[in-house]
Amino acid sequence: MRARVVVRLKRGILDPQGSAVKRALEGLGYREVRDLRVGKLLELELDGAASAQARGRLEEMCRRLLANPVTEDFTVEIVEEGTRPNLP
Amino acid sequence: MRARVVVRLKRGILDPQGSAVKRALEGLGYREVRDLRVGKLLELELDGAASAQARGRLEEMCRRLLANPVTEDFTVEIVEEGTRPNLP
Repeated sequence: MRARVVVRLKRGILDPQGSAVKRALEGLGYREVRDLRVGKLLELELDGAASAQARGRLEEMCRRLLANPVTEDFTVEIVEEGTRPNLP
Repeated sequence: MRARVVVRLKRGILDPQGSAVKRALEGLGYREVRDLRVGKLLELELDGAASAQARGRLEEMCRRLLANPVTEDFTVEIVEEGTRPNLP
């Protein structure tokens, strides 16, 4: 099965990387950017079929390693086979 | 309007960060992880309404700054108002 994990900074946590990218875009003339935040997208291929247990293990991976619970939130999404693999 | 940009390493480009995370997960006992790749998710808030022109400018931002055209692919997605903001 395939899965996607998105890890984002929590609301209220400063995002210096996002601010730097926003400033760089402004410098190139893209003044319409009001806010920009950068997160991580992890795309996983896992042995076994999609199940509640597999999702539970993914959430456990997030809590234990993939996300920092103090500063970050995460979402886990199981990718159905046959859907467009290229969409976020 | 809001938009999401996903920047991923192209197929065939080594992902040392993804390999390191995969090894760390294996070390914690998550041996079901067959492959893991790490990408970037940029979430933007922009002045103005969604339009073909706004999307064009976003794609231009990707080509000029947000993605490395040699090693990375990108996808641009306009986020419809009222959809769940938390999904990748």
